[in-house]
Amino acid sequence: MQKRIYNFSAGPAILPEDVLLEAQENLFSLPGVGMSILEISHRSKTFDKIIEEAKADLKILLDINDNYEILFLQGGASLQFSMVPLNLMPPKNKADYILTGSWSKKALKEAKRVGAVKIAASTEENKFNRIPKQSELNLDPDASYVHFTSNNTIYGTEWKSEPETGNVPLVCDASSDMLHKKIDVNKYGLIYAGAQKNMGPSGVTLVIIRKDLLERSADSLHTMLNYKIHVENNSMYNTPSTFGIYIIGLVTKWLKKNGGLDAMYKTNKEKAEILYNCIDNSNGFYKGHAQKDSRSLMNVTFNLATEELEKKLISEATAAGFDGLKGHRSVGGLRASIYNAFPKKGLEDLVVFMKEFQSKNG
Amino acid sequence: MQKRIYNFSAGPAILPEDVLLEAQENLFSLPGVGMSILEISHRSKTFDKIIEEAKADLKILLDINDNYEILFLQGGASLQFSMVPLNLMPPKNKADYILTGSWSKKALKEAKRVGAVKIAASTEENKFNRIPKQSELNLDPDASYVHFTSNNTIYGTEWKSEPETGNVPLVCDASSDMLHKKIDVNKYGLIYAGAQKNMGPSGVTLVIIRKDLLERSADSLHTMLNYKIHVENNSMYNTPSTFGIYIIGLVTKWLKKNGGLDAMYKTNKEKAEILYNCIDNSNGFYKGHAQKDSRSLMNVTFNLATEELEKKLISEATAAGFDGLKGHRSVGGLRASIYNAFPKKGLEDLVVFMKEFQSKNG
Repeated sequence: MQKRIYNFSAGPAILPEDVLLEAQENLFSLPGVGMSILEISHRSKTFDKIIEEAKADLKILLDINDNYEILFLQGGASLQFSMVPLNLMPPKNKADYILTGSWSKKALKEAKRVGAVKIAASTEENKFNRIPKQSELNLDPDASYVHFTSNNTIYGTEWKSEPETGNVPLVCDASSDMLHKKIDVNKYGLIYAGAQKNMGPSGVTLVIIRKDLLERSADSLHTMLNYKIHVENNSMYNTPSTFGIYIIGLVTKWLKKNGGLDAMYKTNKEKAEILYNCIDNSNGFYKGHAQKDSRSLMNVTFNLATEELEKKLISEATAAGFDGLKGHRSVGGLRASIYNAFPKKGLEDLVVFMKEFQSKNG
Repeated sequence: MQKRIYNFSAGPAILPEDVLLEAQENLFSLPGVGMSILEISHRSKTFDKIIEEAKADLKILLDINDNYEILFLQGGASLQFSMVPLNLMPPKNKADYILTGSWSKKALKEAKRVGAVKIAASTEENKFNRIPKQSELNLDPDASYVHFTSNNTIYGTEWKSEPETGNVPLVCDASSDMLHKKIDVNKYGLIYAGAQKNMGPSGVTLVIIRKDLLERSADSLHTMLNYKIHVENNSMYNTPSTFGIYIIGLVTKWLKKNGGLDAMYKTNKEKAEILYNCIDNSNGFYKGHAQKDSRSLMNVTFNLATEELEKKLISEATAAGFDGLKGHRSVGGLRASIYNAFPKKGLEDLVVFMKEFQSKNG
């Protein structure tokens, strides 16, 4: 087997080895088909089975009922920043946005092009190191929807439970923690997530939308920006990312085989605890960015005393086979992204490395 | 080696076996990297090399000079149907569209949402069986641009040379014949093409845009729909389809290794001739849809006397290992898509099969 390193990249990110091996084995020719997954028509029976199974497995994993439609679109979460307001803002043309980091700010920016947007809460003055409390949310009961970002990749914070919005539809950018635990989809009007963290390669975006919200999509919308048209065409108004959907299908099967999302959540908590414990027990050598009650299970962000020391650690870690620990270019510091597919052993090994680094440099 | 069949699919379509084998070998772990191409950050040095090499190879293959920018976007040609008018229609807000099939009609539909659109020519009354002559084009010298579709996958027609538009920028949907021959990019203002025919998997779209046209992209455009922002961010405003760009890079290397686009064009002409000769010499048993001077080198469309006979041929061909010969669901009949990667041997074998079928059923 080819050599692999520990990949802490925030996304595109580590995928399950079983998924990669199966995709590799069949990349030249799908068994019984005689063509590569890259070469088959999206209108073929082979692909129809792939997309239907991926949808069915997502329904099983998340208990999604028939009130919801599942879409596989292109353009990443960034295109959803526009599609959400374009489709869901009418007819009231006002929405509430909760700001917990760079991505929610980007979502807000596009929404402002469409209608009246209110910032329902923001933790920017705390350098986005925490999730706002329910009592801090200034929600308009007449808003078209409330938008939030469930996990903040850059700052390493995560909502422990959804904001309560009453009858106002809840819209969530779940790009960086989708499928890391079971959520109650019935609490949501729309969930979107770029695949390239827990689900698959970049270039495919999962959208789960409550059917009644499709009525808001106006005929005047550009076709490719219209949820209703994508639903009517089962994500195949035009050619979707067939390979991306295929990989999502392999990942959902891997999740089912490994105990589903409850088992995944249990492991994710254990994995994150290993690293957070190391940080908390370092006598301040490692400083976690996120407040404890807002810590992400997916992205662990921390700092050292100086930028120099951070650079030294990153350089030595990379040499030792721990890749992708550099924090996002906009905030610096360190970040360990430890998605579903990241092995527990990788965290145990990282902690050994970090303790050694501290003893030499502390 | 795993068994493969002859894949006549219109897209996603056949890819070079060398490309599939290299992608397969490295899918689990890129040599010297220790991660899959599916797992590496788009901000990594590894990916930076991949995207820059793909761009450089496209520049070599098509002699693209520094007046042009190369983008790898998402959403397929269908999203370009909207992005082109949204970006290029201002400030005059009028454009000319030449209709040669279903795809140009779809492009027209989105353009109408943006500004005043004139149909400069249409061959719909001939069931799109031909490309209009230059003398038939009713062009406005003051239009923002002229849009045409270089190859019509569904009807099997193709422009032999570009329409002449004087100083008005020429915009081309080249989804289904991009890279099948060398074109003079300097004749174009913008060329776009979904990758899933001659270039790679579905989910990545090539856009080549003349730099001066970027000035038309207004700041008020949604970020993901703004060419200028994609150029400023080298196609990485958000995460692009990293795998798609990787495969395009392998395909461009394969093209270079096999003599470039002139060699490809020579082979494509030979390949198409094999099938068109069979049709022309069948005493009317096989009837080509396209007029001879408008025939596509990429998609050969033809009919038999009855739908029953067509179904019989498709069924027997599929059983014999010739897959994807069914015509587009909107027009019926038969279609053999024979892109760059399709082997000459496959056409020779198909013709043997077709002659046998004729002798049994003629």
